[in-house]
Amino acid sequence: MPAMNRQWILARRPVGDIAAGDLELREAPIPEPAEGEFLARTIYLSLDPTNRIWMSDQDQYMPPVNIGEVMRGGTLGVVERSCHPGFKPGDIVSGIGGWQEYALAHVAQKLPAQANLPLPAYMSVMGMTGATAYFGLLDIGKPQAGETLVVSAAAGAVGSIVGQLGKLKGCHVVGIAGSDQKCRHVVEDFGFDACLNYRSASFAQELNAACPRGIDIDFENVGGTILDDILARINLRARIVLCGLIASYNAKNPVPGPYNFAQLLMKRAHLEGFIVSDYMRRMKEFWNEMSGWVESGQIKYDVTIVRGLEQAPDALRLLFTGGNTGKLLLQLGDEP
Amino acid sequence: MPAMNRQWILARRPVGDIAAGDLELREAPIPEPAEGEFLARTIYLSLDPTNRIWMSDQDQYMPPVNIGEVMRGGTLGVVERSCHPGFKPGDIVSGIGGWQEYALAHVAQKLPAQANLPLPAYMSVMGMTGATAYFGLLDIGKPQAGETLVVSAAAGAVGSIVGQLGKLKGCHVVGIAGSDQKCRHVVEDFGFDACLNYRSASFAQELNAACPRGIDIDFENVGGTILDDILARINLRARIVLCGLIASYNAKNPVPGPYNFAQLLMKRAHLEGFIVSDYMRRMKEFWNEMSGWVESGQIKYDVTIVRGLEQAPDALRLLFTGGNTGKLLLQLGDEP
Repeated sequence: MPAMNRQWILARRPVGDIAAGDLELREAPIPEPAEGEFLARTIYLSLDPTNRIWMSDQDQYMPPVNIGEVMRGGTLGVVERSCHPGFKPGDIVSGIGGWQEYALAHVAQKLPAQANLPLPAYMSVMGMTGATAYFGLLDIGKPQAGETLVVSAAAGAVGSIVGQLGKLKGCHVVGIAGSDQKCRHVVEDFGFDACLNYRSASFAQELNAACPRGIDIDFENVGGTILDDILARINLRARIVLCGLIASYNAKNPVPGPYNFAQLLMKRAHLEGFIVSDYMRRMKEFWNEMSGWVESGQIKYDVTIVRGLEQAPDALRLLFTGGNTGKLLLQLGDEP
Repeated sequence: MPAMNRQWILARRPVGDIAAGDLELREAPIPEPAEGEFLARTIYLSLDPTNRIWMSDQDQYMPPVNIGEVMRGGTLGVVERSCHPGFKPGDIVSGIGGWQEYALAHVAQKLPAQANLPLPAYMSVMGMTGATAYFGLLDIGKPQAGETLVVSAAAGAVGSIVGQLGKLKGCHVVGIAGSDQKCRHVVEDFGFDACLNYRSASFAQELNAACPRGIDIDFENVGGTILDDILARINLRARIVLCGLIASYNAKNPVPGPYNFAQLLMKRAHLEGFIVSDYMRRMKEFWNEMSGWVESGQIKYDVTIVRGLEQAPDALRLLFTGGNTGKLLLQLGDEP
């Protein structure tokens, strides 16, 4: 084990796109666990759109990361040293280890005994992103067979799972993604009924054609003009699962809400903001059901892995430029 | 009874504010009821913000009024002639008689036998506006004692009832209205804890001071910048009862949604569009409870009455200029 720990520090709050100098890579001694703590070596770091929110000081669902602190991030690692009776070296644990190679913790989630999927599965379809898709769609979206479900960022970590869950529930599922290649992937590999490239000049007409009976559920990951196109087509008592608004996370100036906001009134729609951390007490329910679907191949998942802690800011940018498909992970070191 | 019926016809769709010539007053013979129909003379015509929506051809919750048709409107009248076994001359009926002095109908609501309030009560607190306040606040807002409820258009027909219902449920109730005089009225006569004039230069600070524990429920009648000020202050799991967006009904160009739209995500808020016509099957429940509160004086109501069918377009404009308080009615003729 080396003596030094590399860490990304939030040096200043980004204005617009993340720029060089917003985050700084520094070295610090690897700390020793105190009584009740353990030290884990991070194998995978989760990169998520919400990381950009944490870098800002806007009103948000967790405290923002403070300037000078290690950047926050979800991690999966292996325990190296332990002064905690519940964790021993070699245990695989997930938690919020942050953007660093080694993290001290006094609490973390252990993989369950029956875990037999590759480790990246527990950072994607079986982790927070899978739970986001599962609880958001099933609890708030309440899909009924025959309804039309639209999913933005359909090739992404959450969207790709949402669409497959929608198909399992008998919905007509229409994805929206940022390239023809992603759209083919979503239809051919994830089984969506259709997928539309929002960069197409005829996107609005294509959305009409793909949703001949209107839209009953929108699983919203993006916001912006795509959300307006969707709201224009919602049916009576539509459900809008407001999971993310990535289109505006890098904005320098205030971003207007959807111009078709009044449609929420006219169609008596139900819009609900949703953060997966509210569902932690129900994770076992998700875990049991999803593991069955994944093991049987009914739910597929996709992971993009970038290697090396020094790549973290550039890799995060892929989420905003459409450079990844599926769950984006940074691999910091080898699996045990 | 005269031979001719005066009617307001929608001559063209208004662009922005309603202008002279958008509606035309014409005369037509009073029709004879056919088998199964009756003819009612209108006493009161309800003037509501939603009338402006019906004049437009935007996507809406009922078909728009067609060009050349009598303008749609809720009415309370007295049966004059009947070929319908269920209605006899002298019956007081409410329905959608439109902007005209006489209307044929084959269906209408009769006042219940125990009705003993003045007739305008059945066009306001005991009618659609009262039901809007009742079902919107109780069913969607789900007020709990100690929560903070904000009501825009607080001196209006719906808002004034919403705030009183909120007080009955133990909420801290903050109204928003367009003049200091209206605000005094709302606090002194309707018992709101506070009421703020949104035209005040220090409105945002006043809203902070009036809502020291944040905002749990927003009964939204207005939209626009006021809604942004409210969204900036909502608490976790806030409810937004989206009942009206009068700030944008006269807009000539697309109106952006709230700039603080992302707050709905961050605070996991529940926003629901609401139209009272969805609750028709539960009107008896409303009627029973509200009549008790009105008769005991626990719920007060306020009516502005303008006289004469020819005044209809000018009177409707009062809703958009803040010229009325409480329910706005046009009186077309004398009560029997």
